[in-house]
Amino acid sequence: MPNPTAAMLVIGDEILSGRTRDSNTHHLACALTAAGIDLAEARVVRDDASAIANAVQALSAAHTYVFTSGGIGPTHDDITADAVARAFGAAIDIRDDARAILAAHYVRAGIEMNAARLRMARIPEGATLIENPVSAAPGFIIRNVHVMAGVPKIFEAMVASVLPTLTGGAPLISRSMDVYRGEGDIAGPLGDLAARYPQLSFGSYPFQRGGVYGANVVARGQDEGALDAAMADLTERFA
Amino acid sequence: MPNPTAAMLVIGDEILSGRTRDSNTHHLACALTAAGIDLAEARVVRDDASAIANAVQALSAAHTYVFTSGGIGPTHDDITADAVARAFGAAIDIRDDARAILAAHYVRAGIEMNAARLRMARIPEGATLIENPVSAAPGFIIRNVHVMAGVPKIFEAMVASVLPTLTGGAPLISRSMDVYRGEGDIAGPLGDLAARYPQLSFGSYPFQRGGVYGANVVARGQDEGALDAAMADLTERFA
Repeated sequence: MPNPTAAMLVIGDEILSGRTRDSNTHHLACALTAAGIDLAEARVVRDDASAIANAVQALSAAHTYVFTSGGIGPTHDDITADAVARAFGAAIDIRDDARAILAAHYVRAGIEMNAARLRMARIPEGATLIENPVSAAPGFIIRNVHVMAGVPKIFEAMVASVLPTLTGGAPLISRSMDVYRGEGDIAGPLGDLAARYPQLSFGSYPFQRGGVYGANVVARGQDEGALDAAMADLTERFA
Repeated sequence: MPNPTAAMLVIGDEILSGRTRDSNTHHLACALTAAGIDLAEARVVRDDASAIANAVQALSAAHTYVFTSGGIGPTHDDITADAVARAFGAAIDIRDDARAILAAHYVRAGIEMNAARLRMARIPEGATLIENPVSAAPGFIIRNVHVMAGVPKIFEAMVASVLPTLTGGAPLISRSMDVYRGEGDIAGPLGDLAARYPQLSFGSYPFQRGGVYGANVVARGQDEGALDAAMADLTERFA
């Protein structure tokens, strides 16, 4: 049975303008691969309600799981919750359970609860909250979409709390080997190998180290025996 | 007049599995912002012909410029050129000009031209070549789609050679300021500012430095006078 597939949706003008380098996609990719869920695509969109809602609809329909990052803070450009609600035609308002979590946190921290902070309690109807152990303001799950924070430390904590709730397949295992030949010399034998082991996928990633050319050849799959056999073939061919 | 918009399409299983961290999107984002072209969205897809072709069609129709990264090497998983040709119903075959570039490079380098390397001369009909000063194998432009290498050093060189051919608008200028308040205290005044300067866009990016909370407030736009005025307002408000 093939593994479930997932998509990542990064939301934020700051990524597309180059101000901020996204690290959440890479973090999620590693976590899902280990959990046996195939990250099949990723997108970055602007802080624009239509762009967010359209992407959420397309990705939610195409994949088992969707994860979003960004746009759930207190400022005027934090519109993810409303856009996700709109994508599913769900009502959205300040929810008592989310407000209670925020209120308790602000009392402990001696911070005033104001209208801006209260916006972070806007949760679409029917959604389940995702805990935020860093700064309290929760993420949420609606249908198959997991709405999480953009700040990497909070995003990563939310991924950790969400992962045990997902159903993964067999983890994708990879084996790799550096081959000190030009990629054009590796390509033929690698194509043969890909034909011989159809249950695996092979990639080749060229490098140049101190003037020496080579490629890191990677085999990926769920069949450990086939992976070992393929790497033995590869070693024999290029040793 | 609004700036032209662009989209980035990163192609490669290695990004989605977490093996490789994409840096090309961030590089392109910075280069386009400086050139007055708005990067409006980015996507990452697998080494899958349908996924590539569908994304190319959607992005090409929606934006002035599209840039792709990855999948133009010599190995069996390098299918970008064929998938892009398919997206536009263009014929594709080994083209004499591309073959000549490769042949000259391999003669100089004392490398054998084999069937795998010859695949890198497969160029869709009607495309214009993009120079590759690092390893010769060219990228290409078909319609509004710029097909470039995934290796960052080569991608960056191709971006540099393509940029002067693009028509940009007024460069997006940004001003930023660290405000040592909770983001929830910044949100209200920032919303007021956004309403007062509709020609600018404002973002707020929270940080925590040695236990001190704050946010980097960024104003972006093309109107330098408005940017200066907005930052003066902000300083007065939070100094």
